[in-house]
Amino acid sequence: MKTRTTILPAEQSQLLDLIHSFADLARTQTLRHFRQPSLLADNKSDDGFDPVTVADRAVEQAIRTELARLRPDDGITGEEFPPVPSRSGLTWVIDPIDGTRAFLSGSPCWGVLIALCDAHGPFLGVIDQPYIGERFVGGMGVAQAVGPHGATDMRCRTTPALDGAILFSTFPEIGTESERAAFQRVSSMCRLTRYGMDCYAYALLALGQIDLVIEAGLNIYDIAAPIAVIEAAGGVVSDWQGNPVGENGQVIAAANPDIHAQALALLNG
Amino acid sequence: MKTRTTILPAEQSQLLDLIHSFADLARTQTLRHFRQPSLLADNKSDDGFDPVTVADRAVEQAIRTELARLRPDDGITGEEFPPVPSRSGLTWVIDPIDGTRAFLSGSPCWGVLIALCDAHGPFLGVIDQPYIGERFVGGMGVAQAVGPHGATDMRCRTTPALDGAILFSTFPEIGTESERAAFQRVSSMCRLTRYGMDCYAYALLALGQIDLVIEAGLNIYDIAAPIAVIEAAGGVVSDWQGNPVGENGQVIAAANPDIHAQALALLNG
Repeated sequence: MKTRTTILPAEQSQLLDLIHSFADLARTQTLRHFRQPSLLADNKSDDGFDPVTVADRAVEQAIRTELARLRPDDGITGEEFPPVPSRSGLTWVIDPIDGTRAFLSGSPCWGVLIALCDAHGPFLGVIDQPYIGERFVGGMGVAQAVGPHGATDMRCRTTPALDGAILFSTFPEIGTESERAAFQRVSSMCRLTRYGMDCYAYALLALGQIDLVIEAGLNIYDIAAPIAVIEAAGGVVSDWQGNPVGENGQVIAAANPDIHAQALALLNG
Repeated sequence: MKTRTTILPAEQSQLLDLIHSFADLARTQTLRHFRQPSLLADNKSDDGFDPVTVADRAVEQAIRTELARLRPDDGITGEEFPPVPSRSGLTWVIDPIDGTRAFLSGSPCWGVLIALCDAHGPFLGVIDQPYIGERFVGGMGVAQAVGPHGATDMRCRTTPALDGAILFSTFPEIGTESERAAFQRVSSMCRLTRYGMDCYAYALLALGQIDLVIEAGLNIYDIAAPIAVIEAAGGVVSDWQGNPVGENGQVIAAANPDIHAQALALLNG
């Protein structure tokens, strides 16, 4: 097991301020494009121009500029630009707009994902929903949601068994045939399955509103921030074999170890 | 064709104020229960008690009390209580919480639906999302959305053809086998299909963010308010045969007559 990078309290506080400032920056940039007529008009053209990518890139570039100025030794992994190698042992992982199809549809359940990782993985993350004005932060002792109706501490549910569990996924749209079959084995045992929430589902898990999120075909920037947020709220995140989330794109996030073990057994049954 | 009930401008203004006051009342009642620990705890019990129904009934009862006081001659059709016959020619149609599974999951895409109908159908409607603080009102010359970032006039999109259209539905969860096949014929021709938004999808259609909503298994209280909101924004709503929405539970809501005609042809092809 790789060891965590030691971060002193003063730097922890700076890093928390910084990740909030990045999320603030992303709010401004994304809301400039969300539900705007220009976004609609551009999307009707057939020249391959993707206006969501414009918003995506604007956010990531703004954060990269700030990092180059304030923390030039940190690495950066983002959806839109080539990686910057880390010299500090720390790497920022950014998905400027997770849920581009939701963004394009005017749905309020896309999000901005920003995580900070050491060699062990994500240890600080933000899921931000700019339109609702809702932010979920987890890591370094913090597990907090701030939204239109105030701030709350986040804590995952204690649901003991799948028959009481609410499962979310971007399925049935993605995954291979065998992945869909494995997902169905879990879904058929759950109390309720819902689709189409993108990263917002991970926030609902950390908030203690749902019990499971199972997905396939994810990239590391789709899941790094949710891992930090969910682990900070007491949840468990792994790949479908129970290993740390890696390159195979499979993710299972559970409210507690019991639900995680039961779902994992069915995924591999 | 049945004729519209004549409503003078002064009464129109009163009715608009009234529907807003009902939506305000519903906000207070629903937010008392949404994402509350008591909701979670109660749902884990096996005694058949449904806490979402408590919120549902509280909203509908509060509105019924106001109507009995202020407009005792109007009829009421609601999800939770027996119908009140109309003596005025007008009937209020209420779904206190449309999207109970979304409500139960902490998702912010459920809504409060309130409509006012004459013999011809809905002519005033509100879709309200209390958590986001977003309200969509349509009818009697009004087509307005008010949300956390201000107010906007609503206008459906002019997308000319299905290959540029974004389709929403609560499918694949509901509908008969033949209804699912008909839905798939439309979905396969659309640019993008998304699931799971409940009544919020109708609001996105009126807002000009998406082009089509196709559903089956609806009750009149699920669709009365969306009809008024969408028609006020220039859209077209019918059943799958192109007739006014009725008892068969099938609904197709389209941004414009072109999209409506193309989707209708495929539903019946």
